Amino acid sequence: MKAILLVAHGSRRQHSNDEVRHLAGKLNQRCSNEFPIILLAFLELAEPLIPDGLQQCIDKGASSITVLPYFLNTGRHVAEDIPGIVSEFMQQSPVDIQIASHLGASDMMLELLASVAMQD
Amino acid sequence: MKAILLVAHGSRRQHSNDEVRHLAGKLNQRCSNEFPIILLAFLELAEPLIPDGLQQCIDKGASSITVLPYFLNTGRHVAEDIPGIVSEFMQQSPVDIQIASHLGASDMMLELLASVAMQD
Repeated sequence: MKAILLVAHGSRRQHSNDEVRHLAGKLNQRCSNEFPIILLAFLELAEPLIPDGLQQCIDKGASSITVLPYFLNTGRHVAEDIPGIVSEFMQQSPVDIQIASHLGASDMMLELLASVAMQD
Repeated sequence: MKAILLVAHGSRRQHSNDEVRHLAGKLNQRCSNEFPIILLAFLELAEPLIPDGLQQCIDKGASSITVLPYFLNTGRHVAEDIPGIVSEFMQQSPVDIQIASHLGASDMMLELLASVAMQD
C-alpha cells in the first residue's frame, strides 16, 4: 500500500502548522486513489516528527512511502536534514522510502507564481 | 509600469539562492507582458535585500509593485517581517505596493503537490 508523508518544516506559530494540516487533508482527498495513506510530519517545532510520521505510515500498512518535502528550495533541510533522518529510519526499519523533489523544482511552480501575482 | 518583486527568504547556500534567481528569470519570461519589471530580493542572508529590490523597481520606472512572497506558509516572515519592511519603505518612498498571498494559499498548490508525489 502506497503512502505519502508530507514533510513541512514546522513553526512556532500554531496557525502555520494548521495551514499545512489543512493542506494534508485536502491532499488526502485529492490523491487517495493513488496513495491510500497520506500523513503529515514536521522536521522540527511541531509533531509528529519525521520518524514518528514514517512509523505511522508503516503502522497503517504502508509498503512504500513517498516523503514529499513541503519546501521550496534545496537548502540544508532538503539537501541534508530530511535525507539524513530518512536514512537513519531505514536502517532500523527496512521499508521502501523515496524522497520526492522539493516543490521549486516543479515546472508547475512558475504557473503557480504567475497565478498568485495576477490575482493581486 | 507594473512590477513584481519576488521575495525569497535567502540562504547561506549559494546554490539555493541561485535556484530562486533562475526561477525569477523564468518568471520574467513568463509574465513580461503583464509585468514589464520582474526582480528578485531576499528577506535575509542574500542580496539584494527587500528595500533595495523595491528601489530597483522604482529606478526602472515601476508605478506599481506586487511583492510576491516565495514562502509556503504564513509564518512570522510572511505575517510580520515582509509587511513591516514594505510598510517602512512606503513611509519613505510613497509608491503603490501590494503584497500577494503566500504560495500555500493557492488552489494550484494541491495540484503541484499531487504532481510532484506522482513523479516519484
